[in-house]
Amino acid sequence: MAPLLLSLAVLILATRLLGEVAQRLGQPAVIGELLAGVLLGQSLLGLIDPSDPVIAALGGLGVLILLFEIGLHTDLRSLQEVGTQAATVATVGVLVPFVGGYAATQALGFGALESLVAGAALTATSIGISARSLRDVGRLDTPEGQIVLGAAVLDDLIGLVILGVVAALLGGTDITGWTIAKSTGLALGFVVVALVIGSYSAPPIFRVVERLRTTGALGIVALAFALLLAWIAERTGSAAIVGALAAGLVLHHTPQRREIERSVTQLGYFFVPVFFAGVGASVDLRAFGDGRTVLIGVALTVVGVLGKLVSGFSLWNFDGNRLLVGVAMIPRGEVGLIFAQVGLASGALAGGQFGAIMMMVVVTTLITPPWLAVLARSTRPRMPDQSDDGLDDLVSGARPMTPRATRPVQREK
Amino acid sequence: MAPLLLSLAVLILATRLLGEVAQRLGQPAVIGELLAGVLLGQSLLGLIDPSDPVIAALGGLGVLILLFEIGLHTDLRSLQEVGTQAATVATVGVLVPFVGGYAATQALGFGALESLVAGAALTATSIGISARSLRDVGRLDTPEGQIVLGAAVLDDLIGLVILGVVAALLGGTDITGWTIAKSTGLALGFVVVALVIGSYSAPPIFRVVERLRTTGALGIVALAFALLLAWIAERTGSAAIVGALAAGLVLHHTPQRREIERSVTQLGYFFVPVFFAGVGASVDLRAFGDGRTVLIGVALTVVGVLGKLVSGFSLWNFDGNRLLVGVAMIPRGEVGLIFAQVGLASGALAGGQFGAIMMMVVVTTLITPPWLAVLARSTRPRMPDQSDDGLDDLVSGARPMTPRATRPVQREK
Repeated sequence: MAPLLLSLAVLILATRLLGEVAQRLGQPAVIGELLAGVLLGQSLLGLIDPSDPVIAALGGLGVLILLFEIGLHTDLRSLQEVGTQAATVATVGVLVPFVGGYAATQALGFGALESLVAGAALTATSIGISARSLRDVGRLDTPEGQIVLGAAVLDDLIGLVILGVVAALLGGTDITGWTIAKSTGLALGFVVVALVIGSYSAPPIFRVVERLRTTGALGIVALAFALLLAWIAERTGSAAIVGALAAGLVLHHTPQRREIERSVTQLGYFFVPVFFAGVGASVDLRAFGDGRTVLIGVALTVVGVLGKLVSGFSLWNFDGNRLLVGVAMIPRGEVGLIFAQVGLASGALAGGQFGAIMMMVVVTTLITPPWLAVLARSTRPRMPDQSDDGLDDLVSGARPMTPRATRPVQREK
Repeated sequence: MAPLLLSLAVLILATRLLGEVAQRLGQPAVIGELLAGVLLGQSLLGLIDPSDPVIAALGGLGVLILLFEIGLHTDLRSLQEVGTQAATVATVGVLVPFVGGYAATQALGFGALESLVAGAALTATSIGISARSLRDVGRLDTPEGQIVLGAAVLDDLIGLVILGVVAALLGGTDITGWTIAKSTGLALGFVVVALVIGSYSAPPIFRVVERLRTTGALGIVALAFALLLAWIAERTGSAAIVGALAAGLVLHHTPQRREIERSVTQLGYFFVPVFFAGVGASVDLRAFGDGRTVLIGVALTVVGVLGKLVSGFSLWNFDGNRLLVGVAMIPRGEVGLIFAQVGLASGALAGGQFGAIMMMVVVTTLITPPWLAVLARSTRPRMPDQSDDGLDDLVSGARPMTPRATRPVQREK
């Protein structure tokens, strides 16, 4: 027990400290948490071993809680308003990076499976980081901002379905047209079935849970619901995080959502940084001594940036700022990391390949906030930004690593 | 990961369900959580393996968080008001059960170390269960209630120092007068040094932490502080839970205490039941097929009840209800379980001996609420009970398993 206590205490303090430094430099806290992991990991200080079963399990719970939180904050209905445009940006923003990443890594000598993971890691857009950056430059409540938000949510959904397929393939299924179709069907089917059954069964269940006498029941029973769906997802050939996201989407519409969010967010403060620090600790810095790794990283980064820029310009019949949309779609953040981590854990990715994907995730996440700031200064918004709307909630709470000062906590009496 | 997800989901649902049933039957929720563990454990359903490293680590964090919470709720200064009387009850209530338990188990053929663990497990009084039961019968705010509260806090402190000594002995130290004196000195010394240094260093540190921009920093940094003190305690030959308790006592006086409590309580909702269910799952029901185990269990229970009753009658110059004080001191609850669990995990206790201690803990915890109710009906309080005082806080929040409806959660905004 003693080594675990020290590891966890140091992990918490380091992720908090570097997360704070990142935010004060205008970057998302997740960057600092990743760097804390790199610092504490095997390459440098050796204080965190990401292959330790307890650290791995805590990080695994962390990523499930993160996706559960994202689901809780995501209103599928609000997507309908910017529906067609967001769907266009999302589809192009998934397909171009995926195909581009697959092709580029094939050209650089990856195997088929490794290229699939690399391509999949390029598909995601970080809702939290995109939304936060847009709000920081006063463009969240513009048509551009709305489209990016909707597309980012769709991207995560499509990306997670792809992850379910990739996870099944990593599990040893042969890659044929039929198995890919079957895995896609299972992953999509799971989300649809979970959403439909969940929408009918969750409200009455949580009405009963709300009446329980024991305190804290609501949040913790909701977590059990998410773990159960994650387990079912994994068992039916999808990915556990797809189940956790589906659980959040289902509970978004229950009247108990706010209280559930409060509990789950508190748990996330502990568990989520363990995931990011674990990802950082998995990076083998020596891999970057190899020029090849750096080359692959640069190639993936270029594909990652161009692929999402193209998605902005795919908007037809739109007189807004297409470049702004494209740039806001660039940050990969946590979902990209999840792909890379799944690939590494399953043994599909070698250390250098994992390092290259990490490099792409970190660079795309780092360049977005300053780039958006420059764009926003040089153009005018087409309509004024009202900053205190419903979306504020999605943004400020979507990811624990997104700063919102201590406001919500102080607000509670 | 899949088996862990199922185990945790089932564990959460079962502890919540049986905890709720226990409360509706007028018993503390912890009884239901223990039974949930017995049900899910190796003897029956086999859904939880308490020796699994991840479950063991989560439970270990749970007990640290529980002791940290208790420390956060304990005001060492308030003990001074009922100081002498509480100290008398506490001292007698530790010494008599300890010596009685040691003698009884020696007579029944235990080794010296096993008898020490059994005796130590008899010393504790559960603050949460005592306080909750007294409030339920309207006697919390009477002189009797105040004395019991103070004595229960002191009991836990003395008990944890004894645990530190026992843990050192379990770690292989020879049992001599010198090693016992040394272990006692180390355990006591750690608490004193931690309290003194902590009282000076914690306030300025947490003033800085409060100003951090990242949300949730306060609660999570406080947890890191508790884990660090737990680590130091274990490293200096004391017990990790002593460190966690000391961390709570230190932070009780910081202005950020309320916010820290809120975060830690939410974490406790997840982690603490894992500890109790793990303890329950460690019970080998077949051990009770052995008449000897039942005999030892009965002997320990008799010593446990009589030893605490004597503590009530040790009050001199007191015209209140000594029997009520004694009965309210009986429940062992979680601290007794911690002793038993440490003994089992270190290999000092055999399955049957562990089962006998568990039996004593469960029986003493079960009989207190109804016994107090009968006593309260047959006597009048010497002064009326004002139910909404500062103590309310200590009681309602002291243990997550103590019911307080959903009031505090609803109160927030």
